[in-house]
Amino acid sequence: MKHYAGVDIGGTNMVIGIVNEAGETQKMVKIATEVKRGGEDVVRRLAEAIGQVQKEAQVTIQGVGIGVPGFVDHVKGTSVFAANLGWKDFPLADLLSAQIGGVPVFVNNDVRMYVYGEATGGAGRGFRHVLGITVGTGMAAAMYNDGRLYYGSGGRAGELGHVTLEGIDYVCNCGLTGCLETVASATGIARQAREAVARGESTVLARQFPGEKVADITSADVSKAYDAGDPAAIAVLQRTGTLLGRGLAAAITLFSPDLIVVGGGAAQAGERLLKPMREEIERAALSFYWRDLQIKPAELLEDAGVVGSALYARGRLEAGEVL
Amino acid sequence: MKHYAGVDIGGTNMVIGIVNEAGETQKMVKIATEVKRGGEDVVRRLAEAIGQVQKEAQVTIQGVGIGVPGFVDHVKGTSVFAANLGWKDFPLADLLSAQIGGVPVFVNNDVRMYVYGEATGGAGRGFRHVLGITVGTGMAAAMYNDGRLYYGSGGRAGELGHVTLEGIDYVCNCGLTGCLETVASATGIARQAREAVARGESTVLARQFPGEKVADITSADVSKAYDAGDPAAIAVLQRTGTLLGRGLAAAITLFSPDLIVVGGGAAQAGERLLKPMREEIERAALSFYWRDLQIKPAELLEDAGVVGSALYARGRLEAGEVL
Repeated sequence: MKHYAGVDIGGTNMVIGIVNEAGETQKMVKIATEVKRGGEDVVRRLAEAIGQVQKEAQVTIQGVGIGVPGFVDHVKGTSVFAANLGWKDFPLADLLSAQIGGVPVFVNNDVRMYVYGEATGGAGRGFRHVLGITVGTGMAAAMYNDGRLYYGSGGRAGELGHVTLEGIDYVCNCGLTGCLETVASATGIARQAREAVARGESTVLARQFPGEKVADITSADVSKAYDAGDPAAIAVLQRTGTLLGRGLAAAITLFSPDLIVVGGGAAQAGERLLKPMREEIERAALSFYWRDLQIKPAELLEDAGVVGSALYARGRLEAGEVL
Repeated sequence: MKHYAGVDIGGTNMVIGIVNEAGETQKMVKIATEVKRGGEDVVRRLAEAIGQVQKEAQVTIQGVGIGVPGFVDHVKGTSVFAANLGWKDFPLADLLSAQIGGVPVFVNNDVRMYVYGEATGGAGRGFRHVLGITVGTGMAAAMYNDGRLYYGSGGRAGELGHVTLEGIDYVCNCGLTGCLETVASATGIARQAREAVARGESTVLARQFPGEKVADITSADVSKAYDAGDPAAIAVLQRTGTLLGRGLAAAITLFSPDLIVVGGGAAQAGERLLKPMREEIERAALSFYWRDLQIKPAELLEDAGVVGSALYARGRLEAGEVL
């Protein structure tokens, strides 16, 4: 059986794992990214960690996949711009490959790696057209279509979180007003709950988070209040699900997936969010887009980035082309 | 130089042309489709017409591309469902190929053929990511990405005309309320103008089209009234362009094209429509989607379907794969 290394680089930690060709993780190690020591140092420690996990797993890897936040050039294997890593046109694949004996290294955006993993080795096995979304602190999406990731110009496609909708008045970090992720995210859910408290609505959240504590409300707290029958919490998740459904109605009409995989922390709201989401999709999109459309939770969860990156390396090597 | 036949099948007429590898039309003939005589008869007359134009142009064709309305299976070369041709799972490519000596025949949806033509031999030459839209009686769109058409599940991707938007209250022929094409189409522009007249707005159109004549208003009449400074006509095209821009803002955020090609009859409104469209795109989408985005009118015009279909046949033969 063949093996690959998958790497997920974040601003704080890097996770490195050995994954077999079936998508099973064999060994995994987490090390601090220590961004301030610079890219070359990150690469040196990555090479060490890959050597170490490979030794522990007693396998020889065929290739390495690395998921990096921000913009990447997946053809050249460079990190074009990663704000929280301080990288700009950083030749990650070449530098790492040179330090691990020429083993091929493939770089892609972390969200695409996650969606590739779900599509080929997670909830999307057997589906040809997979729209993957993560509803976490922010919101991200990518499209896997007929064996390939969809990139568009500059690799910028799929920013569903920055589709702007009428009925959303929040100013987004990106500068636009009305971005879907200002509502459909953990941050957005908590914000709407705080506003309900501030408006003086009768909600258990006002009693649980008095005064300045209101700032501590999380999307998980909103789910708990929802389960206690709290009308304000129900209204927040209903509205969030409806707006998420409205954005997805446009996305499925344009991309025509046969599966939507929903991941990310806020997705743990589950049916509280997914029910109004589906209802809005069925109201706002043609039936042939949703009649056979499946909507599933992500399967790979915490190690999705590592598994996705490793499976992406497998895919690139097997296809002999850029996916 | 190599030559191809391009065919555009409509409910009333079929246009058959010989196109060289540079995308130049050599010979063209238009014959009645005569749908009621059945698919086999259509194929027989198509084969005859292809033989005839080939003879007149004194060339031997390498392949045939056929654009068909409705749903197609471009891999099998079948018309899956074409309401106005009465076809269902009709094996068009195989039947025609058998009648023209085994010359390969490639079938695709007519809008995709048009966009393929514009992308490879029209306004999109030199662009890698082309979103093509037609604003005609209805509205249609397709995406050409990195040398391939984008299909999605069931080949249904790209139905921008059926993205529903808040602020549109019309019921669409498809059954949904708020579809973009109920406004952003020749029909939609004329309808909004008729409504302005019905509301008793002061407009030259009310004087030009008194009483029941109001039903005769066309989108071209609205453009003429716009040029005469008519406030109602200006408001109609402003609103239409704004809503078109809102739909396109979502489409470019998801597809990330580097060019939008705008074709179709209603697109002749030109800047009257494109100016508010661009303004809305710049309001509603992140700047990195529109900063370098070009928006151009279609170049191939009337014979776009024929040229697009012929160039698609060339593309399929040259790539040796399904595009």
